[in-house]
Amino acid sequence: MIPFKTATPTEMRLAIRNGEFVKPTAGLCPGYAQGNLVVLPKDLAYDFLLFSQRNPKPCPILDVTEVGSREMAIVAPGSDIARDIPKYRVYENGKFVQELEDVSGIWRDDFVAFLLGCSFSFEAALMQSNIEVRHIAAGSNVPMYITNMECRPAGAFSGPMVVSMRPIPYHQVVKAAQITARFPAVHGAPVHIGDPAQIGIKDISKPDFGDAVEIKPGEVPVFWACGVTPQAVAMQSKPPIMLTHAPGYMFITDLQDHEFAAF
Amino acid sequence: MIPFKTATPTEMRLAIRNGEFVKPTAGLCPGYAQGNLVVLPKDLAYDFLLFSQRNPKPCPILDVTEVGSREMAIVAPGSDIARDIPKYRVYENGKFVQELEDVSGIWRDDFVAFLLGCSFSFEAALMQSNIEVRHIAAGSNVPMYITNMECRPAGAFSGPMVVSMRPIPYHQVVKAAQITARFPAVHGAPVHIGDPAQIGIKDISKPDFGDAVEIKPGEVPVFWACGVTPQAVAMQSKPPIMLTHAPGYMFITDLQDHEFAAF
Repeated sequence: MIPFKTATPTEMRLAIRNGEFVKPTAGLCPGYAQGNLVVLPKDLAYDFLLFSQRNPKPCPILDVTEVGSREMAIVAPGSDIARDIPKYRVYENGKFVQELEDVSGIWRDDFVAFLLGCSFSFEAALMQSNIEVRHIAAGSNVPMYITNMECRPAGAFSGPMVVSMRPIPYHQVVKAAQITARFPAVHGAPVHIGDPAQIGIKDISKPDFGDAVEIKPGEVPVFWACGVTPQAVAMQSKPPIMLTHAPGYMFITDLQDHEFAAF
Repeated sequence: MIPFKTATPTEMRLAIRNGEFVKPTAGLCPGYAQGNLVVLPKDLAYDFLLFSQRNPKPCPILDVTEVGSREMAIVAPGSDIARDIPKYRVYENGKFVQELEDVSGIWRDDFVAFLLGCSFSFEAALMQSNIEVRHIAAGSNVPMYITNMECRPAGAFSGPMVVSMRPIPYHQVVKAAQITARFPAVHGAPVHIGDPAQIGIKDISKPDFGDAVEIKPGEVPVFWACGVTPQAVAMQSKPPIMLTHAPGYMFITDLQDHEFAAF
């Protein structure tokens, strides 16, 4: 067994592949980017890629496997996307079927795996600038909401944007927008600041996914495009088969967070 | 006939559609972005989209038609991509076959049209900051070179990056890099500054495409990823059929150049 606290991404992926680590990946390999997984059959891959291209804020693509390959060759050379995530979910016709620790047994030659940027990277940047990330401070999951903002449709895929929310003190709102704007590959600048009703959120205390967090006096709810969007949209099209990571069990890449900085 | 000097993009596209304007589009609709065209059958569209996603500097995608549609619905609602460009080129099995002013007669239901960002937009930004763009001052075509920098391959598509070159005085080089970095959707920051041999260019006075320009004492050759790359790469894969715009005869969008600014 390797010491997980100091493992490199390659070592950590290997430990996961060998079944030595079956827990959520938050906090592992600090400084390295983690990613969301969506696996679809090739005949849906074009529509999904086009949907992502048209909606880069909720769907920032980090890597796409070649058809027939299980390697994330750009962000994690030598990886095996069917085994290097601690827990997967299997959906059939848009319905959750089971969780698996290894999907190599059900992998098909026509599968294409998409890796999408995740907010872990920009949350690290916020905290490094002394901006509190409430759900991390509270030890809960980030609150997520389905909005009235429609994504640009593409082929079989359409649906509303899902956003995550972080309460930010008034005097840090502009700074938070500037910091996250530097990271377009991990959702980038906020999509909305302030009044939740403007984007169709009726009750901020009742998130559609994740846990509610306290908004203190003098704080503003700030909303970012969320990586749950592509999973929700893909599921809505009821593909015969779709694999994803299980929430919180992410893919660890060789990319360092700061490599995402656009400027 | 409309007055071409003051026409809106919609009016200009209509004039072109009606055969009233069959000339290069440089200088038309100042402030509005123009785009490069690549049309491929659907069965090659996924590989081309993935190639573009993996190589965003030479292949910045502005819009993609839905299969079976000829409208660039995002950047030019109401447009007809088969008729709104003054001159097209037709390639069969990677070989140039003919030029046409209208390709609606040979359009197929399985065609997908890709519109790619073009350097006109960032050249306007450079000139607005008092940085001379040599080939425009000289009234010639921009010099372009095939480099030793390989694009990331995707499926059927692979090949070297083609770059364009603009000589910039030493004291303006950083400024030119900063200005163009703001426009990632139109090739963004330079890919190389200085010694041409570093990127495999043997003789700077002999461009592979376009016209040579003078590099004056005290000037540095600065290289940007070029929109000829995707056409060259697509052609190299010898698709049974491919349509492009004829060089200089571009598609005029409703997007204003400054909308591309990322920060």
